[in-house]
Amino acid sequence: MSEQARLDLQRRQRLGMVEAIWGEHKTAAQIAPILVRLQASGEPALATRVDEAKAIAVAELLAADGATAALVPQLQHHPEARGLSLGDPLPPRPELGHVVVLSGGTSDLPVAAEAQLALHWHGIASELLLDVGVAGLHRLLNQLEGLRPAKVLIACAGMEGALPTVLAGLMPQPVIGVPVSVGYGVSAGGQAALHGMLASCAPGLAVVNIDNGYGAAMAALRILSSGAAAAS
Amino acid sequence: MSEQARLDLQRRQRLGMVEAIWGEHKTAAQIAPILVRLQASGEPALATRVDEAKAIAVAELLAADGATAALVPQLQHHPEARGLSLGDPLPPRPELGHVVVLSGGTSDLPVAAEAQLALHWHGIASELLLDVGVAGLHRLLNQLEGLRPAKVLIACAGMEGALPTVLAGLMPQPVIGVPVSVGYGVSAGGQAALHGMLASCAPGLAVVNIDNGYGAAMAALRILSSGAAAAS
Amino acid sequence: MSEQARLDLQRRQRLGMVEAIWGEHKTAAQIAPILVRLQASGEPALATRVDEAKAIAVAELLAADGATAALVPQLQHHPEARGLSLGDPLPPRPELGHVVVLSGGTSDLPVAAEAQLALHWHGIASELLLDVGVAGLHRLLNQLEGLRPAKVLIACAGMEGALPTVLAGLMPQPVIGVPVSVGYGVSAGGQAALHGMLASCAPGLAVVNIDNGYGAAMAALRILSSGAAAAS
Amino acid sequence: MSEQARLDLQRRQRLGMVEAIWGEHKTAAQIAPILVRLQASGEPALATRVDEAKAIAVAELLAADGATAALVPQLQHHPEARGLSLGDPLPPRPELGHVVVLSGGTSDLPVAAEAQLALHWHGIASELLLDVGVAGLHRLLNQLEGLRPAKVLIACAGMEGALPTVLAGLMPQPVIGVPVSVGYGVSAGGQAALHGMLASCAPGLAVVNIDNGYGAAMAALRILSSGAAAAS
Amino acid sequence: MSEQARLDLQRRQRLGMVEAIWGEHKTAAQIAPILVRLQASGEPALATRVDEAKAIAVAELLAADGATAALVPQLQHHPEARGLSLGDPLPPRPELGHVVVLSGGTSDLPVAAEAQLALHWHGIASELLLDVGVAGLHRLLNQLEGLRPAKVLIACAGMEGALPTVLAGLMPQPVIGVPVSVGYGVSAGGQAALHGMLASCAPGLAVVNIDNGYGAAMAALRILSSGAAAAS
Amino acid sequence: MSEQARLDLQRRQRLGMVEAIWGEHKTAAQIAPILVRLQASGEPALATRVDEAKAIAVAELLAADGATAALVPQLQHHPEARGLSLGDPLPPRPELGHVVVLSGGTSDLPVAAEAQLALHWHGIASELLLDVGVAGLHRLLNQLEGLRPAKVLIACAGMEGALPTVLAGLMPQPVIGVPVSVGYGVSAGGQAALHGMLASCAPGLAVVNIDNGYGAAMAALRILSSGAAAAS
Amino acid sequence: MSEQARLDLQRRQRLGMVEAIWGEHKTAAQIAPILVRLQASGEPALATRVDEAKAIAVAELLAADGATAALVPQLQHHPEARGLSLGDPLPPRPELGHVVVLSGGTSDLPVAAEAQLALHWHGIASELLLDVGVAGLHRLLNQLEGLRPAKVLIACAGMEGALPTVLAGLMPQPVIGVPVSVGYGVSAGGQAALHGMLASCAPGLAVVNIDNGYGAAMAALRILSSGAAAAS
Amino acid sequence: MSEQARLDLQRRQRLGMVEAIWGEHKTAAQIAPILVRLQASGEPALATRVDEAKAIAVAELLAADGATAALVPQLQHHPEARGLSLGDPLPPRPELGHVVVLSGGTSDLPVAAEAQLALHWHGIASELLLDVGVAGLHRLLNQLEGLRPAKVLIACAGMEGALPTVLAGLMPQPVIGVPVSVGYGVSAGGQAALHGMLASCAPGLAVVNIDNGYGAAMAALRILSSGAAAAS
Repeated sequence: MSEQARLDLQRRQRLGMVEAIWGEHKTAAQIAPILVRLQASGEPALATRVDEAKAIAVAELLAADGATAALVPQLQHHPEARGLSLGDPLPPRPELGHVVVLSGGTSDLPVAAEAQLALHWHGIASELLLDVGVAGLHRLLNQLEGLRPAKVLIACAGMEGALPTVLAGLMPQPVIGVPVSVGYGVSAGGQAALHGMLASCAPGLAVVNIDNGYGAAMAALRILSSGAAAAS
Repeated sequence: MSEQARLDLQRRQRLGMVEAIWGEHKTAAQIAPILVRLQASGEPALATRVDEAKAIAVAELLAADGATAALVPQLQHHPEARGLSLGDPLPPRPELGHVVVLSGGTSDLPVAAEAQLALHWHGIASELLLDVGVAGLHRLLNQLEGLRPAKVLIACAGMEGALPTVLAGLMPQPVIGVPVSVGYGVSAGGQAALHGMLASCAPGLAVVNIDNGYGAAMAALRILSSGAAAAS
Repeated sequence: MSEQARLDLQRRQRLGMVEAIWGEHKTAAQIAPILVRLQASGEPALATRVDEAKAIAVAELLAADGATAALVPQLQHHPEARGLSLGDPLPPRPELGHVVVLSGGTSDLPVAAEAQLALHWHGIASELLLDVGVAGLHRLLNQLEGLRPAKVLIACAGMEGALPTVLAGLMPQPVIGVPVSVGYGVSAGGQAALHGMLASCAPGLAVVNIDNGYGAAMAALRILSSGAAAAS
Repeated sequence: MSEQARLDLQRRQRLGMVEAIWGEHKTAAQIAPILVRLQASGEPALATRVDEAKAIAVAELLAADGATAALVPQLQHHPEARGLSLGDPLPPRPELGHVVVLSGGTSDLPVAAEAQLALHWHGIASELLLDVGVAGLHRLLNQLEGLRPAKVLIACAGMEGALPTVLAGLMPQPVIGVPVSVGYGVSAGGQAALHGMLASCAPGLAVVNIDNGYGAAMAALRILSSGAAAAS
Repeated sequence: MSEQARLDLQRRQRLGMVEAIWGEHKTAAQIAPILVRLQASGEPALATRVDEAKAIAVAELLAADGATAALVPQLQHHPEARGLSLGDPLPPRPELGHVVVLSGGTSDLPVAAEAQLALHWHGIASELLLDVGVAGLHRLLNQLEGLRPAKVLIACAGMEGALPTVLAGLMPQPVIGVPVSVGYGVSAGGQAALHGMLASCAPGLAVVNIDNGYGAAMAALRILSSGAAAAS
Repeated sequence: MSEQARLDLQRRQRLGMVEAIWGEHKTAAQIAPILVRLQASGEPALATRVDEAKAIAVAELLAADGATAALVPQLQHHPEARGLSLGDPLPPRPELGHVVVLSGGTSDLPVAAEAQLALHWHGIASELLLDVGVAGLHRLLNQLEGLRPAKVLIACAGMEGALPTVLAGLMPQPVIGVPVSVGYGVSAGGQAALHGMLASCAPGLAVVNIDNGYGAAMAALRILSSGAAAAS
Repeated sequence: MSEQARLDLQRRQRLGMVEAIWGEHKTAAQIAPILVRLQASGEPALATRVDEAKAIAVAELLAADGATAALVPQLQHHPEARGLSLGDPLPPRPELGHVVVLSGGTSDLPVAAEAQLALHWHGIASELLLDVGVAGLHRLLNQLEGLRPAKVLIACAGMEGALPTVLAGLMPQPVIGVPVSVGYGVSAGGQAALHGMLASCAPGLAVVNIDNGYGAAMAALRILSSGAAAAS
Repeated sequence: MSEQARLDLQRRQRLGMVEAIWGEHKTAAQIAPILVRLQASGEPALATRVDEAKAIAVAELLAADGATAALVPQLQHHPEARGLSLGDPLPPRPELGHVVVLSGGTSDLPVAAEAQLALHWHGIASELLLDVGVAGLHRLLNQLEGLRPAKVLIACAGMEGALPTVLAGLMPQPVIGVPVSVGYGVSAGGQAALHGMLASCAPGLAVVNIDNGYGAAMAALRILSSGAAAAS
């Protein structure tokens, strides 16, 4: 049972993405050595779903070991996005274009922030457009022009999740819907938003799992890279 | 087992509504005598969820019995609304105001028509506004002024069911959302639309069961009657 | 990521409702500035789903900032309704009539209280009728006369949620059913009550999301305002 | 694969019940020999969920075989209850008392009839009280005195299924709730009624599977037999 | 909002049961006065789903008020059954016969104990038969003779919940199945056990809500009282 | 779109199993050429979930084509198992031991027969033990000795699906539970049986999808082959 | 109720897509005039989910009306894709690159064909790669090189739906997963495949509703257009 | 209520398995005496789902009682597997062959460890193969040769749970899939993985309940014992 985690170090070469660590069900003692090994392999090292207590525990583990103590200053916790990184992101790739991340309400912020962090970690620029939920439609309609330059739109919404539907009916870009697990009653856990996005009457809306900001960012990265190949 | 159906003949006095017959799981042999007894009691006689074959079977049963054969000309099938009526509706009550019934798409028409028929049967005027789904938002935005005189809005939608949410964010009247069982995959059966309406971020949207055009009409009737009481 | 929340300040003019803050998934640091900005805009400032600890944290944040410290005395926590308000409600509008809020049992009280607080905040008077669950039917039957003057009835119930059905079979007014998430086993989370209300055999019962006392109040407000328009 | 069905011929001695054949997923070719064998063993032979076409097919199979042709006159189809019997029921046992079967609406009739047939087949008398759904409560309240002599109440209801709850809050006898699969939207298939009965706020309501009129009858038979033992 | 709980004090006369307080969602401040009022009305006072901390809080509230301090010695917490009582149970009624409560495993004990406490509170004697789950069938088969004198069998089981099915196939008495919310994966929350009991191939098994030991006891009480009436 | 189906002809070498055709969603025009190509490759050719009408259509297609008309006599429909085969099964492998397939009731027969056919097609002998459902437990207990020589037990059951649990508590062999989609209400579609088997309190019960007689047979084949390897 | 369908004729200008008619719940009498009006507006006219009988009925309606009889030769039914078109598709746009549509099995073909037809209707070229399900992994691994030139991959799969996950772990392009409603038991209706794709451990997999081949095509079109913009 | 737990001490003789204690819903006071009694009966004593705090509490209970204090040194907590044992496992049985336990990711480790501990406790050797999830397929493909000598493969996976499907398509041995409750959104609780494994397109994959590492080990033990019998 002492076997080491088997990392997928060829992932960047194969898919153009780093292997991020999904931190939610892992202990600090499991996360710390994976971060170190990723960095030692020349890969950008990022863990998602890491709260502040776990981030501190990772820092303490690195500090307690002579072989890794020097790495502590490179460890950075991103509280809003619940991310933990070691070292630097990939260099910026402005030629791929940028992404706009929209959110229906303030409560969707952690998911939007996770998407932005994941994009940043792969060198992709993004903007955040907060609080454009459809109950006050003018807030979104007033921003449409600002969305036109974006190559991909990521729309995060909880409750009934109608934002991506309305957005995809107004704008021609790829729209990735991210259901968010805020809500209560029938929307608790994000199922109503998920089903609303999948059932959307707007054509060509693509969806990822509830709260999966990271996945939305990677779907956007695939799209941007495909477009870049087209351009060359 | 030969007991006769126990009708709720005081319902109109108590609630201001006639007792409509829910025809879906009843045979023609069960529906025919109830219609006759309702009419004989001076009540408007209406059955919902009656398809054409069952309507014809009811007509044949009435025609075959000397005591009821004279009623056949008063029997009327409403194919779009799937309703079957015997005799006349209640007289018009224009002083209560009117209702607008909106639908997201053509496929929602049977449910919208059931709501209109039920309103008409209680003397309430209504208008239909078809095909104003949110995938082409301008279709709804162009109609808002026409909605202002209505006392109640009934919004029927299948798929993700976002129409009532967008509507309730734009207009101040009572909005009753009716989820419609059109769709496939996660929207099959109308569950996605139902959950989307219940989870709506728009404040004060009230909801009835899937496909329940009749119920939406009765909720509107309660509202109109309550307002009329206020006015007096 | 430092963008400010985008408030819907025209909501009262458009819909006749203030924009309440849904506090459940927001931090004190997010709630405090929104309350301040709402008040500064001349809007009644109300947050729902705020427990006592979060309310105290908001107070401390306001107190710690010179620009807002003077507002602390206007901050009020409503423990039973789990609401937090800054400043005064809208002035009373007795001409719109009043609402009766019924509850099946004592455990439904927080939801009933939320509905009453939301009505009060919009100037609407309400009465509470507690513990009229259908297992002891005489408790409700004894109160029917007292319900007649009300313009709208809001019925909160957990478990099997039969109260709104029985009520809507007895009284002609608009009845808004609010399923409550008390119960265990199949009624845990309020799903059994929600489905029972949607499937009701009583005609014209309208339903809102589980525990959505605020939404029921806003639906009632739409009805009262519509009736007022009728009266004028 | 030619093995004969393994009948549970000791069931009556062990449990006081005959082994009824659940006919829904069986072919006429499977049902016919089981009926014959049950009768040959001196057991009352009853199959449930047999529609008219299948009943005719069984009759034809019996008629076509010289060894069984003489049994055809003893074969009886009970269309309302969807039952098929061969030979006679058990003799009446009036000393056990009788059962009242209530139904919310006419559409619940097949389930109520199945319960009555199963009771009759075990020698138990029953009465049917039709159309006492809670949307017109006076219909039930007017009948309470007639229910007092019954030893067990079986209450069949679809839609929201509130009838057994209201009944069990009014009467002291054992109440067995039978959810019925009539309804649409959230009540389609009888799930809302089932959950409503299980979640009932009325104490001591016992429930059987959706549409399980036969099971309700057998639960009543267990109760009556247990009371008879008490009496001796 | 200061209205007092509306107690159902005629319940014992009407149904033969006391009104027990469901304590799970009530505060100590809500429970204490209800217990006092029930006792003052001459009713046995029992609350279910009260853990030790809440029981102590109730005791402290009673002690702190001069009018109720003298009642504290009559307050009794039943930890295994999670019940809190004030004063004495109803006197024993041995003429009604006794109940056996069976449990599949040790983890079902709290539910079984709740059933036993509720029976005891109504004067009914019961025995407990623990750990007779069907994975080791001989444990149950060895006990069958001891079950024969019981008038009612209550069978509590989590996981797949097969115990009541096997029991009802072996014994002729009324069997009440109580699904228990122990288990994980598909059996988490007791849904698998509930569905297994409802779908049982054993005839006449009646079921109550998950973890509803109190309801099973009240169903048994209805049966015992009905039998007693038969006997007289 | 005219591309030919891509067969997995190395499956037998890799896994020891032939590639059976899942016929349920395929047309006769799709099934016929795959059967022919499998046979031409020297593979035993078997399609599952083929009803009689589709089998006849396949025969007609083969007959209509000169290149395949000679194959028609080798085509065989297995009505109980709903299978369609072309040519011969694999030769018997008695050294691997045999399997017993048990069924709770007659309605489970098609699933049990599919398992037996699939075993036969791979050279494995099997016996069928019908109607040993747990409502009449003695029927199973009387057969235990006959089960001892079997290497694997496959237990098919609908309704509550308790048979595999009871069996796995009594016998030491590998037990594979197959939930069957017979039942109504909560057991409709086989979900209750599936969950009951997964939640089983009997240790080491393995489960396959609802109605998946073929899959159970293949799991048994894997076990038998693994044991044979052990024996050599 | 005679209002005409409100078409979204600006959709192509706004989103780059034509408005396809969702034909499943529409009658031939509703579909025919919409096709005619779309064509009259210069839009490519396409209806999805139209079976052969409905297609013939549309043709007959057009033929019966002198104003439209001349259009019949332009009407074309696409049986595999279940599509009905009037007139010509948009001209080819090879500069946008092409799409590969993969399917796990032959039963997924209708969904894959719908995606291909929708792409073709918008001028996009596509290839089909059939039967590359993961149970015989070599079939997919052998085709990877052929996938490299594609700009977008659409992967259709029923059952457990693992194909898009495996594909997205191997290839860097945008991958759109389409769950297909083939399967039985837990995979009936496509829910298992849908959840498997949303829960995928492969990063950046985007998903559309079950059987939504049209939606997958439109998501691909958005991506291709976005890349084209990048290229210019 | 003081009855002692009824242990199934003949289980090893009957089934070849010890009776493990499922510790999750039991208190330390319930677990301690069962462990002692098992050991006193000569049975290996093992409890599953025991966290460190409960293990310490058991140790303290044993230490506090003179009759059991001497046993404390034999008590061992297995933190990764969440197991608690008293005394020694059964002696090694290398002649039965060994098992390989695979896991998709590090988060699946507790379930894999529980399976290994349960095997070890019955004398079965096992190896762990960690982190071979299908998002980086080469990690699994590189290990296939090492899997050939194993008699049984146990594959643990959360998220979409595709690992057992891919594995069962590549290797001929018995494969037991164990869904793991790691994931979020649609995969929260392990339902997506469970359904994916049951719906698998790979033939002969057998499945146990979510997180049921113990059950998978017992299924493997049944297989190994059956093979051993074959060999003798």
